[in-house]
Amino acid sequence: MHIKECIVSAPGKAILHGEHAVVHGKVALAVSLNLRTYLQLQATSSSKVCINLPNINTFLSWDVTILKQLLSDSGAVLGVVDELDGELVKRLRDFVGVANGNLDTRSMAILAFLYIYITVFAGTGDLPSVTVSVWSELPTGAGLGSSAAYSVCLAAALLSASGTIPSPLTDLENTARWAEEDMELINRCAFQGERIIHGNPSGVDNAVGTWGGILRYHSGKITTLSRVPMLRILLTNTKVARSTKVLVAGVKDKMNKFPSIINPVLDSVDAISSTCEQTLSEMASDTPTPEHYDVLEELIDINQHQLNVMGVGHPAIDRLCGITLARGLHSKLTGAGGGGCGITLLRPETEHSVVLNTIQDLRDCGYDCWETRIGAAGVQQHSPLAVKEEVLEVLARY
Amino acid sequence: MHIKECIVSAPGKAILHGEHAVVHGKVALAVSLNLRTYLQLQATSSSKVCINLPNINTFLSWDVTILKQLLSDSGAVLGVVDELDGELVKRLRDFVGVANGNLDTRSMAILAFLYIYITVFAGTGDLPSVTVSVWSELPTGAGLGSSAAYSVCLAAALLSASGTIPSPLTDLENTARWAEEDMELINRCAFQGERIIHGNPSGVDNAVGTWGGILRYHSGKITTLSRVPMLRILLTNTKVARSTKVLVAGVKDKMNKFPSIINPVLDSVDAISSTCEQTLSEMASDTPTPEHYDVLEELIDINQHQLNVMGVGHPAIDRLCGITLARGLHSKLTGAGGGGCGITLLRPETEHSVVLNTIQDLRDCGYDCWETRIGAAGVQQHSPLAVKEEVLEVLARY
Repeated sequence: MHIKECIVSAPGKAILHGEHAVVHGKVALAVSLNLRTYLQLQATSSSKVCINLPNINTFLSWDVTILKQLLSDSGAVLGVVDELDGELVKRLRDFVGVANGNLDTRSMAILAFLYIYITVFAGTGDLPSVTVSVWSELPTGAGLGSSAAYSVCLAAALLSASGTIPSPLTDLENTARWAEEDMELINRCAFQGERIIHGNPSGVDNAVGTWGGILRYHSGKITTLSRVPMLRILLTNTKVARSTKVLVAGVKDKMNKFPSIINPVLDSVDAISSTCEQTLSEMASDTPTPEHYDVLEELIDINQHQLNVMGVGHPAIDRLCGITLARGLHSKLTGAGGGGCGITLLRPETEHSVVLNTIQDLRDCGYDCWETRIGAAGVQQHSPLAVKEEVLEVLARY
Repeated sequence: MHIKECIVSAPGKAILHGEHAVVHGKVALAVSLNLRTYLQLQATSSSKVCINLPNINTFLSWDVTILKQLLSDSGAVLGVVDELDGELVKRLRDFVGVANGNLDTRSMAILAFLYIYITVFAGTGDLPSVTVSVWSELPTGAGLGSSAAYSVCLAAALLSASGTIPSPLTDLENTARWAEEDMELINRCAFQGERIIHGNPSGVDNAVGTWGGILRYHSGKITTLSRVPMLRILLTNTKVARSTKVLVAGVKDKMNKFPSIINPVLDSVDAISSTCEQTLSEMASDTPTPEHYDVLEELIDINQHQLNVMGVGHPAIDRLCGITLARGLHSKLTGAGGGGCGITLLRPETEHSVVLNTIQDLRDCGYDCWETRIGAAGVQQHSPLAVKEEVLEVLARY
């Protein structure tokens, strides 16, 4: 079997508006984050399957023969990516020695890789020798969709390598995207990886990783916004640890305690998401104006205050908001809150020096901070020419 | 005519919940503030009417004969306190040389005094020689009802001195309050003073100054809450100047711009006022518990965030909230916002050292800060024995 080598990347995700409210049936806007996860797949003659995950200091390999044995012992329906094969997951858990309930990043990453590798190649009747190396610009466990970007990269690379979907790259371009039906398959396959890692994911993260841009999420329904602008932002990780579960429960408690006070707040957040969606659509179909940015900034401020009403704010986020506002920039938390990450909108006219000084101020607080973009492309295949030098270097090390 | 000398006092007011929302038909809770205005009325044989307002460095006197001339030239309906006599106000403006549109504190205070003095005594057919000295613990122009406390004191003292209402003080007590129907008259008379000073006041401030306690204000209707607890608070004046008019217009603009976002916020604030009212009523009819205070604190936090949503917050208030929260105390702005004043709830168990340290922290920011109570008594008459030494000293100077 001929294995097609490739380099692919997928973006992270952030919630622009609607975090927490989305749990209670309101609209949320999820956006792609141009901090990307890169994956290089190489064919080898080692009769081994190797996975290198330098971000989490994980480098493992297995003999293909052992994996084949595992496969033939399994009663798994092969080549199917639409449902999670619980039996195969159980076998893989036993195989790599991951106890049920163990959710550490390394174990979950290994399980997801082996699962997608086996289900994709099982359909071809063979398990090839490959080395898969992954490098991510995203911090893990920060609510930025790093696991989904990883799963999307795995799905895209392995489905392409196996010939299940064509490679979109031509001689004419250094970066290319798959056709819509191939992305559907990548997304469904990546979703199984997300299910292994998270148990009961919403599917938003892998959808953002696959399609990029901006997605509307409402009561389990995911809609891709057709045309969206790309917006410059700062993404800041306060590194204050938070438990999404505890924060979600806190909002629920507040709703139960003060329904007449909190329910209107969720309605207000719903309207923020819809107003933002409409503004972004105007910006994409027309030339973005300063007034559009004024509205986006005002919505960010209002939503940040509403998140404080819900009790998911944190002094570290207040500090982020204060620091950026002192330079005329508007910020809100993104995701679960209680610390975690925040986004800061940059305007087209925001000067480079302002951006650099703001980043320095935030780093002086001990925060991680990146200048990036939201609304960027989803999963892509790259020729090595199109990949940043430093990423190629990291991937070439293994 | 026998003039009854007296010392009276009236409290200031703060908005506990519902500022701004009240402009749009929602419930607000106004509370009395035990920072009081004291007034001493003395009969003299000087044939002069003297007013001493040391807070605003104003000391004036007029010959009674000149005032009598003014009165007899006037076609004013005498002794009526239910309607503002526009003709008399105009004559008084000419008399003291206050141009229409001039709204400075000193001119307004003089006009209100002369108006109430003349209308109250005109009913008796004589204008007596009196010296009225006023000292207030309230800052002026800070939205704390200082003008209403002044008007209420003027009304109570002059109506009592003229014999229009009886003096409630007996030999058995050093502080006493008037009967309900007398307070009605004091309130109506004080309202005319407020109309002179503010043009189109809501009547809430003079009602709080008269009845004290906690008032519910909704679409022009003022209801006194029957039983309320007295709560310890810190009142902080950030001394950041603000224009109520500009702030109210800003909220209106936001409503027009984002109706679906802002209208639910006003509904939420309405529910905060109602929930607070219910909690206070429970506290008054039963023993207040720590859980009651927990609710009051949570409502304060939520409303402060909602006021930020409306755009009437200010970094000086954020700082106040941050400083007090660092000591476990919860604060919100009170009144128009945009700087101005904030209130901080103290719990019964809050230690004296915590209060003192907090006050020091706030003063270190350049803020004025007082420990006081809300829900305190309305207008009162005092024997000199019941008045704080330092207040008596100030009043005795003139």
